[in-house]
Amino acid sequence: MMTTQELTEGLQGRILTGTDELLRYSSDASRAIPQGLPLAVLAARTTQEVAAGVRWAARNSVPVSVRGAGTGLAGGAVAYPGGLVISLAEMDAILSIDPGNRLIEVQAGVVTADIDAAAAEYGLMYAPDPASYRQSTIGGNIATNAGGLRCVKYGVTTDSVAALEVVLADGEIIRTGSKTRKNVVGYDLTSLFVGSEGTLGIVTGATLRLKPRPAGTAVTFRATFPSAASAGRAVTAIMNSSIVPDVLELMDRASVEIVEKYHPTGLSTDGAAILVGQFISPASEADATVASRLCKEAGASDVDQAEGDVLLEARRVSGKALDARGLRASCDVAVPIARLADMFEALEKISADENVAIPTFAHAGDGNLHPSVVIEDESAEAYAEAERILDLITDQALQLGGTISGEHGVGSLKFASVSKQLDPATRAAHQRIKNAFDPHGILTPGRGV
Amino acid sequence: MMTTQELTEGLQGRILTGTDELLRYSSDASRAIPQGLPLAVLAARTTQEVAAGVRWAARNSVPVSVRGAGTGLAGGAVAYPGGLVISLAEMDAILSIDPGNRLIEVQAGVVTADIDAAAAEYGLMYAPDPASYRQSTIGGNIATNAGGLRCVKYGVTTDSVAALEVVLADGEIIRTGSKTRKNVVGYDLTSLFVGSEGTLGIVTGATLRLKPRPAGTAVTFRATFPSAASAGRAVTAIMNSSIVPDVLELMDRASVEIVEKYHPTGLSTDGAAILVGQFISPASEADATVASRLCKEAGASDVDQAEGDVLLEARRVSGKALDARGLRASCDVAVPIARLADMFEALEKISADENVAIPTFAHAGDGNLHPSVVIEDESAEAYAEAERILDLITDQALQLGGTISGEHGVGSLKFASVSKQLDPATRAAHQRIKNAFDPHGILTPGRGV
Repeated sequence: MMTTQELTEGLQGRILTGTDELLRYSSDASRAIPQGLPLAVLAARTTQEVAAGVRWAARNSVPVSVRGAGTGLAGGAVAYPGGLVISLAEMDAILSIDPGNRLIEVQAGVVTADIDAAAAEYGLMYAPDPASYRQSTIGGNIATNAGGLRCVKYGVTTDSVAALEVVLADGEIIRTGSKTRKNVVGYDLTSLFVGSEGTLGIVTGATLRLKPRPAGTAVTFRATFPSAASAGRAVTAIMNSSIVPDVLELMDRASVEIVEKYHPTGLSTDGAAILVGQFISPASEADATVASRLCKEAGASDVDQAEGDVLLEARRVSGKALDARGLRASCDVAVPIARLADMFEALEKISADENVAIPTFAHAGDGNLHPSVVIEDESAEAYAEAERILDLITDQALQLGGTISGEHGVGSLKFASVSKQLDPATRAAHQRIKNAFDPHGILTPGRGV
Repeated sequence: MMTTQELTEGLQGRILTGTDELLRYSSDASRAIPQGLPLAVLAARTTQEVAAGVRWAARNSVPVSVRGAGTGLAGGAVAYPGGLVISLAEMDAILSIDPGNRLIEVQAGVVTADIDAAAAEYGLMYAPDPASYRQSTIGGNIATNAGGLRCVKYGVTTDSVAALEVVLADGEIIRTGSKTRKNVVGYDLTSLFVGSEGTLGIVTGATLRLKPRPAGTAVTFRATFPSAASAGRAVTAIMNSSIVPDVLELMDRASVEIVEKYHPTGLSTDGAAILVGQFISPASEADATVASRLCKEAGASDVDQAEGDVLLEARRVSGKALDARGLRASCDVAVPIARLADMFEALEKISADENVAIPTFAHAGDGNLHPSVVIEDESAEAYAEAERILDLITDQALQLGGTISGEHGVGSLKFASVSKQLDPATRAAHQRIKNAFDPHGILTPGRGV
C-alpha cells in the first residue's frame, strides 16, 4: 500500500488526505462517477509544488488528475482511485497586465471572469466566456480549449493564448509561445498543450491575449421559429453573410421551458425554437436589421429587439437549469455551419423514433450543440439508455462532417468514442505525442486521446 | 554508393536525376548555399507518390528536403548532398470549394494567390498573403506559418488552416483537424504541423478557412516620419486603438530608395521612414482619419491619402528589389508591438556603431521587421560580416522580448540561433516531438528546431 508520507513531508501543509476532502475533490460537474477515492490531494500554490507533486507521482507510478474549479463536463478532472489530485485552485494570482501589448499573465487557478474584469480596467477584454466563466478557472478553460458565447466573434480559448508555463511528467518546467504577434521559432507547443486535457503536462500559468472591448451600443434580437431546423437555416444564412454577431445562441422550446422554471426571464415558448443574437459595434443597429431579415427569410414567425442581459443570462444558466432538473446526460457535438438544419432535423427524428425528449441549446453561430436526454429516473438502466441516445446523436454529428466535442473535451465520458472520429493512423500519431511526453502514463491516463 | 534504381522503378517518370535538374532544385530564395547535389528529385503528383518516396528514403537513410516554388527565405528547402528532394509543385489542384462552410480544399503545390482568386469567385478571400504570394505555394506557406500584409487584420497562415493531410516519416498518411468551427477532439495536430518546416511530416493537402472579402471602399494613407522610431510609435498607437487596419507597413528611407530604383512608384524619400496603412470597411474613411491623427501625434511631418495599389505594390516588390541589389543578407525578427520604437532605435545605433546601412521594411502592425545588411562585395568575408551584424540585430530583438523569426522560419540559416530563444528544457520538449515523428531523422534534418 502506497503511503503519502514522503509527499506530505516534501509539501508541508499542502497535502489533504481526510476522507471528506478526498470526496470533495473526487468528482467534477459531469455525470462521470469516481471509481474510488484518491490517495491524496495536492492543493498547490506554486509551480514548484506542482512539479514536486508530479515527480513524486512519477517515482511511485501514481496516476495524476488535475482540477481547478471542478466545473468540467467531460469527466476529465475526476479523481483516480489511489491517485493524486493536483488542485490549482489556489494558484489564483493575476501576475501582470501589459495593456501596451494587450497581454495578461495569470496563474492557472484564476477564475476566467476575473481575468476579463481585470482587463476591463484598461478598456480591454478577455474574450472567451464559457457559460461557467464565473466559476471555471483559466487552467481548465485551457485544458479543454473552452468555447463560450462570445467565441462566435472572437474565437475559442486557443485563439487567445500567447504563451504557457507547463510542468511535464518528469517535473521539468517549460515555457511555450511568445509575447509577439508573430513567432515561427519552434513547434506551436502552445496550441498543442491547449486542449490536451492534462494528458501531456500540467498548465500552471498562461499569457493571454486581450482585445479592445467593443465600442458601440449592444443591440440584441430574439427570433422565434416554427422549427429548430428553420432556426438552423437562419444561423447558416447569418454566418454566411458579411455581418459578424457578438453572440448567436439557439434554444429549443424544451430547453426554454426548463430554464424558465429554474430562473424565470419571460422567455416565450410560443415557437419551436428561439434564436438570440447580439451585435456590439458602431453598426450594430444596421447589423441587427440584416440579421432580422435573414431570420424572417428562414421562416421566423416573430423577430423583436429585447433586453440583452436577460436573454444572455437565460442562456448562461441553461446548464445549471438542466442540472437542477437532473439532466446531466448531455453532449457537445458540433457540425459544419451549413449542416445545422440537417442536425436539428436529425435530432427531431431521433426524438420521435426513440420517444424521448431532447432539449437542446446551442452556440449556434459556431455550429456547436448541447442536446440533453431527459432521464425520468435515476436508475443505472435509465442512464445507460440515455448514453445510447447520446451515441445516436454523436454518430449523426459525425455523419454530417462534425465532431463529438466542440468545447467540453473528451475527458473520460467520450474516450471510448474517439476512434469514431479519428482514423487509426491519426490516432496513432496522437499516441506518439502522448508517449513522448508521458512515457509512463501518469498524467490523466485513459482520458482525452 | 546509394543508387536510385529502386526509386525510379517504383515512381515511373517522376524521378529526376539529370545534373541540370538536380542543380535547379538544389537552392531556394535564401542566401543558404547547397553543400552538394541531391541524389534525385521526386516530382510528386499524388500523396501516394510522396509516401512512396518517403518510404524509400526511410529504408535507405536518405535525408529528405521538401520544396514547392522554392521561394523560402530561410534555407529550409535547400537540397541535402546525396539527399532526396520531394517537389510538390505539380500537386497543384484545387480539389473543392465549399462556400457554405467557407472552406477550400487544396493540394500543397497550389500557388497561394490562385487560392485567393478561386475564393474571390464566391465573394470570399484566402487572407494570408506573403509578399511572394503570386509565386509561393500553400505547402510552403503552411510549412513556415507564413505571414503577409493582410495578416495584421486576419492573422497568419495557421489561423486559416482547418485541416491537413500529412505524410509521416514512415509513409503513413494522417488527417488532422475538421470542417467545424470548433473541435476539441484530440491534440491540435493541425497547429503542430503548421510551421514545423518539414521536420515532422510532409503536408500534402490542406483544408483552408475563407473569409468574406471586406466590404467598403479601400482608403490608403501614407505618413512620412522624421525617424523610424517615431513611425514605430505611431504603429504602437494605432494597434492599441480601436481601429483595425487591413494593412500597416513601414519602409525606411534606405529601403524606399532601393525599391524606387528597381520599380519606380513615386514614393517620396523626404523623411526617414514612411508608413503605409489601408482600411477596407464601411468605416474606412473614419478609421483612416483616426490613424492620420495618431501618426501626427507621433510626429509625422506629412500624412496624405494615396493610391493604395501603387503603395502596396512597392511594399510587395521590396524583397525582389533587395535581391536585385544583391542584398540577400536580411532577417525576420519580431518584437512586442509596444517595443517597436525601441527596436528601430536599436537598429539606428547598430547602423551607426558598425558603420553599415541597414535598410528595413516591416509588417509594422505585427511588430515584424525585415532589416537587411548592405554588402558591398560578394566575398565570403563580406557575408560573414553581414551575418555578424544580423546576429546583433537578432540579439536586440530577443532582448526586447521578441523572436528571431516572425514569418520566414528557422530553416538552416537560423538553426544555430534557436537556443538563444528557447531554453534547454523547452528545446528538449521540441526534440521529444521530433523524435516521436521522425525517429531516424530523415525529414529535413538539422533544420527548423
